[in-house]
Amino acid sequence: MDIRERFGKTVSSIRRKQNLSQEKLAEISKLDRTYIGGVERGERNLSLLNIERLSNALQMEISEVFRLMEGDTHNED
Amino acid sequence: MDIRERFGKTVSSIRRKQNLSQEKLAEISKLDRTYIGGVERGERNLSLLNIERLSNALQMEISEVFRLMEGDTHNED
Repeated sequence: MDIRERFGKTVSSIRRKQNLSQEKLAEISKLDRTYIGGVERGERNLSLLNIERLSNALQMEISEVFRLMEGDTHNED
Repeated sequence: MDIRERFGKTVSSIRRKQNLSQEKLAEISKLDRTYIGGVERGERNLSLLNIERLSNALQMEISEVFRLMEGDTHNED
């Protein structure tokens, strides 16, 4: 699976576990709601600065977000 | 420190520990040598696809590269 898609699924999964709406995550991260939607659909090739912004908004270390992504990809389909 | 700079220092440190020149890393990752130089100087806001390419070339998980970056930043000046 493409890394954009893997990353998007991971962000979506973390966000839902934290009971955050896309709107709320957009507000906290100061990113646009449509941008968050695009990220979660795997359509965005995020840069370091936006990866940091999203991780901060989810109150996670960047390494932890990627660790979850790697775990998901190893264990699913 | 800016994440671009933190990431660049980490890539540089990993590369040197693996006894790779910038030229060799460029060759393995199929990225330009001047681009690698820019990354290491913290001038580049890399995207997911290039972060993946560099991590693959360094034979590391992306999460591990960021874990090293976070550790360095927590422990150094």
